[in-house]
Amino acid sequence: MKTPFPFSAIVGQNAMKQAMILTAVDPGIGGVLVFGDRGTGKSTAVRALAALLPPIKAVQSCPVNSPKAAECPEWAELGSKKLVSRPTPVIDLPLGATEDRVVGALDIERALTRGEKAFEPGLLARANRGYLYIDEVNLLEDHIVDLLLDVAQSGENVVEREGLSIRHPARFVLVGSGNPEEGELRPQLLDRFGLSVEVRSPNKVVERVEVIKRRDAFESDHDAFMTQYGAEDAKIQKTILSARKKLAKIHTPEAILHDCAVLCIALGSDGLRGELTLLRTARALAAYRGDKVLTRAHLRDIAPSALSHRLRRDPLDEAGSGTRVMRIVEEVLG
Amino acid sequence: MKTPFPFSAIVGQNAMKQAMILTAVDPGIGGVLVFGDRGTGKSTAVRALAALLPPIKAVQSCPVNSPKAAECPEWAELGSKKLVSRPTPVIDLPLGATEDRVVGALDIERALTRGEKAFEPGLLARANRGYLYIDEVNLLEDHIVDLLLDVAQSGENVVEREGLSIRHPARFVLVGSGNPEEGELRPQLLDRFGLSVEVRSPNKVVERVEVIKRRDAFESDHDAFMTQYGAEDAKIQKTILSARKKLAKIHTPEAILHDCAVLCIALGSDGLRGELTLLRTARALAAYRGDKVLTRAHLRDIAPSALSHRLRRDPLDEAGSGTRVMRIVEEVLG
Amino acid sequence: MKTPFPFSAIVGQNAMKQAMILTAVDPGIGGVLVFGDRGTGKSTAVRALAALLPPIKAVQSCPVNSPKAAECPEWAELGSKKLVSRPTPVIDLPLGATEDRVVGALDIERALTRGEKAFEPGLLARANRGYLYIDEVNLLEDHIVDLLLDVAQSGENVVEREGLSIRHPARFVLVGSGNPEEGELRPQLLDRFGLSVEVRSPNKVVERVEVIKRRDAFESDHDAFMTQYGAEDAKIQKTILSARKKLAKIHTPEAILHDCAVLCIALGSDGLRGELTLLRTARALAAYRGDKVLTRAHLRDIAPSALSHRLRRDPLDEAGSGTRVMRIVEEVLG
Amino acid sequence: MKTPFPFSAIVGQNAMKQAMILTAVDPGIGGVLVFGDRGTGKSTAVRALAALLPPIKAVQSCPVNSPKAAECPEWAELGSKKLVSRPTPVIDLPLGATEDRVVGALDIERALTRGEKAFEPGLLARANRGYLYIDEVNLLEDHIVDLLLDVAQSGENVVEREGLSIRHPARFVLVGSGNPEEGELRPQLLDRFGLSVEVRSPNKVVERVEVIKRRDAFESDHDAFMTQYGAEDAKIQKTILSARKKLAKIHTPEAILHDCAVLCIALGSDGLRGELTLLRTARALAAYRGDKVLTRAHLRDIAPSALSHRLRRDPLDEAGSGTRVMRIVEEVLG
Amino acid sequence: MKTPFPFSAIVGQNAMKQAMILTAVDPGIGGVLVFGDRGTGKSTAVRALAALLPPIKAVQSCPVNSPKAAECPEWAELGSKKLVSRPTPVIDLPLGATEDRVVGALDIERALTRGEKAFEPGLLARANRGYLYIDEVNLLEDHIVDLLLDVAQSGENVVEREGLSIRHPARFVLVGSGNPEEGELRPQLLDRFGLSVEVRSPNKVVERVEVIKRRDAFESDHDAFMTQYGAEDAKIQKTILSARKKLAKIHTPEAILHDCAVLCIALGSDGLRGELTLLRTARALAAYRGDKVLTRAHLRDIAPSALSHRLRRDPLDEAGSGTRVMRIVEEVLG
Amino acid sequence: MKTPFPFSAIVGQNAMKQAMILTAVDPGIGGVLVFGDRGTGKSTAVRALAALLPPIKAVQSCPVNSPKAAECPEWAELGSKKLVSRPTPVIDLPLGATEDRVVGALDIERALTRGEKAFEPGLLARANRGYLYIDEVNLLEDHIVDLLLDVAQSGENVVEREGLSIRHPARFVLVGSGNPEEGELRPQLLDRFGLSVEVRSPNKVVERVEVIKRRDAFESDHDAFMTQYGAEDAKIQKTILSARKKLAKIHTPEAILHDCAVLCIALGSDGLRGELTLLRTARALAAYRGDKVLTRAHLRDIAPSALSHRLRRDPLDEAGSGTRVMRIVEEVLG
Repeated sequence: MKTPFPFSAIVGQNAMKQAMILTAVDPGIGGVLVFGDRGTGKSTAVRALAALLPPIKAVQSCPVNSPKAAECPEWAELGSKKLVSRPTPVIDLPLGATEDRVVGALDIERALTRGEKAFEPGLLARANRGYLYIDEVNLLEDHIVDLLLDVAQSGENVVEREGLSIRHPARFVLVGSGNPEEGELRPQLLDRFGLSVEVRSPNKVVERVEVIKRRDAFESDHDAFMTQYGAEDAKIQKTILSARKKLAKIHTPEAILHDCAVLCIALGSDGLRGELTLLRTARALAAYRGDKVLTRAHLRDIAPSALSHRLRRDPLDEAGSGTRVMRIVEEVLG
Repeated sequence: MKTPFPFSAIVGQNAMKQAMILTAVDPGIGGVLVFGDRGTGKSTAVRALAALLPPIKAVQSCPVNSPKAAECPEWAELGSKKLVSRPTPVIDLPLGATEDRVVGALDIERALTRGEKAFEPGLLARANRGYLYIDEVNLLEDHIVDLLLDVAQSGENVVEREGLSIRHPARFVLVGSGNPEEGELRPQLLDRFGLSVEVRSPNKVVERVEVIKRRDAFESDHDAFMTQYGAEDAKIQKTILSARKKLAKIHTPEAILHDCAVLCIALGSDGLRGELTLLRTARALAAYRGDKVLTRAHLRDIAPSALSHRLRRDPLDEAGSGTRVMRIVEEVLG
Repeated sequence: MKTPFPFSAIVGQNAMKQAMILTAVDPGIGGVLVFGDRGTGKSTAVRALAALLPPIKAVQSCPVNSPKAAECPEWAELGSKKLVSRPTPVIDLPLGATEDRVVGALDIERALTRGEKAFEPGLLARANRGYLYIDEVNLLEDHIVDLLLDVAQSGENVVEREGLSIRHPARFVLVGSGNPEEGELRPQLLDRFGLSVEVRSPNKVVERVEVIKRRDAFESDHDAFMTQYGAEDAKIQKTILSARKKLAKIHTPEAILHDCAVLCIALGSDGLRGELTLLRTARALAAYRGDKVLTRAHLRDIAPSALSHRLRRDPLDEAGSGTRVMRIVEEVLG
Repeated sequence: MKTPFPFSAIVGQNAMKQAMILTAVDPGIGGVLVFGDRGTGKSTAVRALAALLPPIKAVQSCPVNSPKAAECPEWAELGSKKLVSRPTPVIDLPLGATEDRVVGALDIERALTRGEKAFEPGLLARANRGYLYIDEVNLLEDHIVDLLLDVAQSGENVVEREGLSIRHPARFVLVGSGNPEEGELRPQLLDRFGLSVEVRSPNKVVERVEVIKRRDAFESDHDAFMTQYGAEDAKIQKTILSARKKLAKIHTPEAILHDCAVLCIALGSDGLRGELTLLRTARALAAYRGDKVLTRAHLRDIAPSALSHRLRRDPLDEAGSGTRVMRIVEEVLG
Repeated sequence: MKTPFPFSAIVGQNAMKQAMILTAVDPGIGGVLVFGDRGTGKSTAVRALAALLPPIKAVQSCPVNSPKAAECPEWAELGSKKLVSRPTPVIDLPLGATEDRVVGALDIERALTRGEKAFEPGLLARANRGYLYIDEVNLLEDHIVDLLLDVAQSGENVVEREGLSIRHPARFVLVGSGNPEEGELRPQLLDRFGLSVEVRSPNKVVERVEVIKRRDAFESDHDAFMTQYGAEDAKIQKTILSARKKLAKIHTPEAILHDCAVLCIALGSDGLRGELTLLRTARALAAYRGDKVLTRAHLRDIAPSALSHRLRRDPLDEAGSGTRVMRIVEEVLG
Repeated sequence: MKTPFPFSAIVGQNAMKQAMILTAVDPGIGGVLVFGDRGTGKSTAVRALAALLPPIKAVQSCPVNSPKAAECPEWAELGSKKLVSRPTPVIDLPLGATEDRVVGALDIERALTRGEKAFEPGLLARANRGYLYIDEVNLLEDHIVDLLLDVAQSGENVVEREGLSIRHPARFVLVGSGNPEEGELRPQLLDRFGLSVEVRSPNKVVERVEVIKRRDAFESDHDAFMTQYGAEDAKIQKTILSARKKLAKIHTPEAILHDCAVLCIALGSDGLRGELTLLRTARALAAYRGDKVLTRAHLRDIAPSALSHRLRRDPLDEAGSGTRVMRIVEEVLG
């Protein structure tokens, strides 16, 4: 309804902005978890991301935004097969959305009027090739989060319910915001998010005044404000598009793979998702910066987002997990 | 059914009356929470507000009271497109209202008789451009309150249920009353209300006798009573209408922004909703008073309503949060 | 089915009988709560009340007993519009009544056979202009009691469910019986009942023998018994009808208002429902007794019923709340 | 299916047999609760009662066994109106019976085939003028027991559900068996049963051998066994029929009423159901014995069954409540 | 699907095998509970029993296997009334069977296509005249076990649900297996099983090797194995059939009845089901062994199965209940 | 959707790979449980297995993949009866699959359009002759796991629900993955899995780097990678097919049976499933290795997988159960 607040007008919050940009460069990195106190602009940032993302080409009538008619699911009744350009889908999981609307369900209307057992796609279909945003993901029931992560990881939504046996592509980046004070995610779920970032209220007067001023200008002097920051947003979008092309060509020295493994063993992160994500995110960063060879500098920058939610809980304060990552990064990478 | 008790005939309760008036001046301030013991006239006050509010112009057959036919939702079957003048809607969420009636749902009648999957709007549609009142908001389930706040904040009702995928504008001020003895709201929810006020029974005999007399006159000598206070209510309405026009022109000195930030940091309120609400409410107050420049006096008046529900809970008695705000306001603003 | 036991044949229990009579004089006093041990004749008394109440004039086919065709709800399919005389409705909320039968619901038969979405009124409609009796109100779920009190207080039943959006008048006196040993009502609910009385088994042999004898005569010598007490019941009904006419003319000296306020402040009762009910009930008593001016004597008589359920719970035994009221009444009114 | 074990062939258990006979003489006494260990023949006794009870005259097609066509409920589609003789109904509430089958419900078949909203009577209709037996009443949910007691006491089944608003006579004696080790009934429910008896396994070898022999003869030499005890059962039935006629003529001296009241006050039983049941049961005993005047001897015999479940729980062992009654009976009646 | 493992090829487990054989001789003994660790062949034994049982004669189209057309239930639509010979039904209550499939329910197909309210029989109908097997009976909900025991004992399935009011014969032996480590049955339920046995893994190498060899031969050399043990199974079946005929003629000396009573009093078993089962099972054993007179030897053999689940729980180890029975049997019977 | 990662490209994890191969040689071994930390490639391994498995011949239209038209279930509406070659089915139980889709249910479409009560097979039908994979089996409800194990063991799916009474073959190997930190399976369920293996993250840098490299090559150099490991996978498949033929001919010396029994008694494993699985799995290993005689070496290799989940829980750390098996294997087998 309203034009969202521009991404580049967000004051500070660099880790969050970087994480979001990198998943736009390489959606294969996996979802992003944004932790933070209430009122720190988590929702604003995600909605800002929507305006920033590059458009996609899709078959006009395809319910999963496929780029070719031949890739549209066989259960869809296709109308126009014209290719159209569309904003990258950013689907919002509204509070109170029922499971049938998330995964899709029996199309009651067609069942009643035409006596057919047809599939009515849900939010996961619409999110294909885009983003799925969940506010307060820690308040969702575990089985739904599990399901969403499962789909996000496999890139496919498999529906076995109400007599339906359907599957369709559902490749999207899951973005969840959460307030750790209101309930925590199981470690099993945490591990399946690609990156995590923490946002905090700025505690300097000058920064807070800047935030107030920009929000105020956004509302009272909307057009001028949008013009100013719209240009900055466009620059970021362009850099993302260019980074995508460079991604496959980043050179990864053997020593860097070794660094990833040593780092994860030192941190005691379970499983191997840690190093795989670290590697992938570092490459996206290199591509975004226009670098051709992966270096320790990239790993250093990206390690807290890629690893801090994978540490085993420590009797020491959880808030320190980012710090623990930083300290070990320094020890390992020098 | 009954003419409500006049707003201006309410004895005392100035903070509550001011908060309600200011959200009428600028609905963007957000909802109002009214805390207090049982029997202190919370419901009476909200119902009184209804009679006070300025009328709106709306398309006659539009289910969301849109001011132009072009802005009516595409799912509505419009009849007359004539513009009519209507009382500002004040929608009461009755006890036992089911979720489908709140957010809207599949129109069963059209589904059964015409085989169509049509949307039947709920209370959130009717509340557009008005007020939504919830008695004993602390007794509602969290997920409903969450949903209501979400809609109130985004100004849009997004429905994903029963095979429907619908959205419509739902800009309203949420007014909730609650008795803190009977269950508390989560801090996350508290923070999303714009203002909060506390009402108490008057503890002076003369004031209580005045209350009894006015209630008695309202019932036994209804017409004379309504004539007397109706005139006062009309004056308030007129001032509100005039304040709305002045709102955009209030000048906000840089120092005031600085004050807002310093005050919130001193109070330790999480996030940035505190200063944004403080600023907005202070401007509405200035407009209502006919002042052209925002001053510390406005902040001082409005700080307890805008901030006391945003303080972290203190081992000290909660009832003192208003007092804590006042003390720090004095320290910071002098 | 059976003729109920006559009201005037109830041995003792004067507070309860008085409370019931006064709500018949002025239904605006609000509901009556009857507390007491099992087997003390609570149900008997309420059913006896039914036979005592004066008849009403109502449109024959109106589902809410309206006195004029123009006041019947617009959703009703009216048949005969003739005015008929009817016993005051006393509706019994049977155990296991479902919420749809209480508030009304979609008329399934019309929906299925005529494809119409019509409203089928519930018990609240039938209770309009009469009494609604709930046995063991403390065993009902809070949300139902809340709903019933809300309707009783506003005089209107607002239904927002199953795609219906209906309202109709529902002005009735709620009479609830309860056994405090089996669960208590929330203070919030207690406060919304107008009066409360406590009944106990008589503990004198002579009184108990009298009770047994009357019950025995009622069953073994039914006709003679009904003739004897029917005459007494008729007298009470006549006095009620006459009191209703006098009610508006009772003079209330300023000092009495002052007494009400002082009394409630001394008792520490929350809110202002205490003094409003005290005043209203005292006037009904004056009218019933044929007095023209309200005096302290009326307040004294009525204070325990009007106030004892409004006291804050005391670490001291709850059974003593009536006594506490009496003691403070003596201190305040002399 | 099987001929039940004859009532008179039950070894010992005199209190239980007497209680059952007296409710057959005067069903107004109210239900009977049979407490006892597992395997003590509680079910056998109740099923034996069925064969003993005198037949009734009823309209052949009446769903509630009315004795006259004019008394059949108006919602029933009557077929033959012939008066027929029938065994006294003894309805068994089977485990897993759903609430709709107990109280009656919408007749789905008629709704679907004829589009009518008709009532299909439940077990309570069939039990009219007879007995309703519930095995392990303490395992039923409170709200069902409550409902059953409510109907048993008022003699009327009021149904407000599924859009139906129906009432029909349902006068029956409720017989419940229970094992106090597996959950207790609320005092409120206990008080609404007329009589209670406790059964125990015999602990003498000779008595147990006699039980085994009779069960063995019942199964191995069925016909001879039934002939022998059938004659004894017939005698009891005849005495019951004769006692019913004498019941109204029993003379009750004033002193006996006085004794009832003194006894109940001494026992501290709540309410007045104690003395009313005591009186009524004593009269049924007198009638069954052919006595014309009520004496203390009748009270003494019947007091434990009529009163022991009405005592307030005592820190002393509950099993002793019968003994407490006996001791106080001796003190009071000498 | 697979031929079951032969009953006579089960190594050891004599108590269990005897209990199963005796209920085949006299189904009136009641159900059998088989307790034991996991993997001890409980299911195998029950399925083996199926192949051993003698065939029955039944009306071909009768849903409850009645031996005469006149005894088929009136609600059944009978096809062929020819008498056919059938294996004794052994019905398996599969995990996840819904209550409607157990007791029977409304036949949805006939309701939808023919508009009739017909009964579709469930597993209890099919089990008539046979066995009903429940694996892990201790994991079933109490109310279902209760229902099954109730039907097993009364021999009749009474259905009061979904507007149906149906009854049909359901005489079967209930066989339940359970692992006491995973939850216990209520004493009330235990008492209603006729016999109980405990099975354990053999703890001798030679015996375990024998078990492995037989299972191995059963799978690798199936035909030879079945021929060998099939002959033994046939012998057992023949002896069962012959024992059934002798059963009614077993002479029971008075002293044996006395022994039963003394034994049960000494063991302190509640109720009288103990001695009745003891007597009945001892007679079945005598008949199976070809003895004509009941002796103490029969009681001694059968006492642990018939009584050990009827002892009150002892602070001493429960596993010892069989031992306690044996010790007291020795004291009492010498 | 994506080609799965090749089985032979999995680094390390030999126990898991061996267990999976052996159940492919002899599906009668029973299911495999894979325990391990998050991110250790459990899902990857199972999906890799799919590509490795030998194809089956099945009737084209048969819903349970029967190898002959005569073996297709009688409830199936067969189309083409041609025999086709198909990949071994590997069915994935997706999160949120409803019970009706697992076991099969009433075919709603045929019920509505043709008025027939037909069965719509579920995932268990599709899994016949193949594998059923459950991720995070410890998060499933017990009753579903129970049901799945029951079907897996009996090889037959028995459906008694929604008025259906259906059975069909469902022989499959159940593969479950689980994280013991997130909830444990009941011992009763553990015992019913044939084998269990534990997987851990490699803790050597070189091994972890190898894992990263292969995953990287799989994604960035997909075709070359698949060609390389596809050949290795084909070799394994060929060896499995050849082992299946040899299986029945493995010679089992008496001493080996003795060893199995001694080992299980020494370990204290309950029941006899331990030795039966040990024997069966050792034979599959011998066949896979091309050995003709079963030796202690085979038992030694296979004992941890076959027995460690059958040990009683020890106050000592559970992770040590594999070690305990190894130590006792050494003591017993030398």
